[in-house]
Amino acid sequence: MALREQLEDVSAVTVTPFAGNGVDRDGVAGNARFLADAGIRLIVCGGNTGEFYGLSPAELRAVVEETVAAVPRDVVVLAASGYRPELAVELARAGLEAGAGAVMLHWPVQPGVGEEGLSRYYASVIGAIDGPTVLYVRGSLLTERVLEEARAAGELVGVKYAIPDLAGFARLAAAAPDLAWICGLAEGWAPFFWQAGARGFTSGLACVAPARSLELLDALRTGASGTVLRLWHELLRRVAPCDRHCRRC
Amino acid sequence: MALREQLEDVSAVTVTPFAGNGVDRDGVAGNARFLADAGIRLIVCGGNTGEFYGLSPAELRAVVEETVAAVPRDVVVLAASGYRPELAVELARAGLEAGAGAVMLHWPVQPGVGEEGLSRYYASVIGAIDGPTVLYVRGSLLTERVLEEARAAGELVGVKYAIPDLAGFARLAAAAPDLAWICGLAEGWAPFFWQAGARGFTSGLACVAPARSLELLDALRTGASGTVLRLWHELLRRVAPCDRHCRRC
Repeated sequence: MALREQLEDVSAVTVTPFAGNGVDRDGVAGNARFLADAGIRLIVCGGNTGEFYGLSPAELRAVVEETVAAVPRDVVVLAASGYRPELAVELARAGLEAGAGAVMLHWPVQPGVGEEGLSRYYASVIGAIDGPTVLYVRGSLLTERVLEEARAAGELVGVKYAIPDLAGFARLAAAAPDLAWICGLAEGWAPFFWQAGARGFTSGLACVAPARSLELLDALRTGASGTVLRLWHELLRRVAPCDRHCRRC
Repeated sequence: MALREQLEDVSAVTVTPFAGNGVDRDGVAGNARFLADAGIRLIVCGGNTGEFYGLSPAELRAVVEETVAAVPRDVVVLAASGYRPELAVELARAGLEAGAGAVMLHWPVQPGVGEEGLSRYYASVIGAIDGPTVLYVRGSLLTERVLEEARAAGELVGVKYAIPDLAGFARLAAAAPDLAWICGLAEGWAPFFWQAGARGFTSGLACVAPARSLELLDALRTGASGTVLRLWHELLRRVAPCDRHCRRC
């Protein structure tokens, strides 16, 4: 299966367990096995759920290594990267060396980043690493031009879109239909992003109830809109009552 | 003069000049001398204006070293710190070793930080460094409880408040009147923060027109409200027409 299709799935964004003063390697491995056994085939190490900004480069690498070693080969592991360009390249390379199938590049942390800066940031990082990259988008600066320049720089395979701008998402997805377009706002937004062209969504819920996330994915894939809405209500009301993007609770 | 009073001034948040692949040390020193010669007595190295998130730890240290070496001893230099706690402590110590008079601790970059996490973050960083700290606040989580715990952990001397919540600022400033309370949104917001209890404001403008910033400070200090409003209009319309917090342009 091509990587792009593998990305069009439930992205389980793992938590990072800690023990003493560092990462609990056994805990990481156990969590990864739990996910793989439950049918998860796409795991993100070092997302926000995984405390990316709290991990040292060595800790992040340990998380990726343990995860890759714990799951079957048909599970794709994404290793997170971010921060300033030089460090982002270093983290991305370390993740790929540790066995990740692709890099997930966090949104830049610079508060004043503009369209031109974002474009150069993406180009400099994607152009310097030897592996596929998924962009994690948390701001409104991703334009078609930025996307085009990021693609020209290297191997961009997908976009995980985590702002509730469905029209913006739909426009970008239509402009680059060969990329994997992923709802980055989890189950609460997945049905609406699906309408806008997303295939696949991120999930923290999958860390504890992977079957529920996969059930929603199945319903979305088969186009069973009644089932989708029923599952969505159940997930939001019972399993994940506090989705801070829905503004309902 | 006590540090708290020294902080109640124009905080010139410097830019970081680059040359080739690194920091332009001569440029840093030249800029610092320009500021000191113009009467600036408080310089922040590694603010957002100074590309904190684009600098390596070594580059940040170089900026502080060159700035400290370039200015008279009565100029207070603040060295920025941030990121995860261990790295924040490392950067803070490096800044103090390089001669900074205090540390400016950036807002945590973790997107999911809550009140409890912020409190523990501040306590762990402030408690581990041997020098005064100013908090750079860019979110709404700074409550009186967090502030109290941060103060209990070590030498907290001031707060640079950079969200446009004047009521929140006024409440906090009244609760801790022995700290330096600084408008972190520059000249555009300085008059309003002054009414809410601020003494002193940050400035990027000071990097190019320090006399204008100091003139506004003088007017605020003397309580010349007509002059304040005239200067404020001039600064926003002529010198800094695009203040993105004012929503007028």
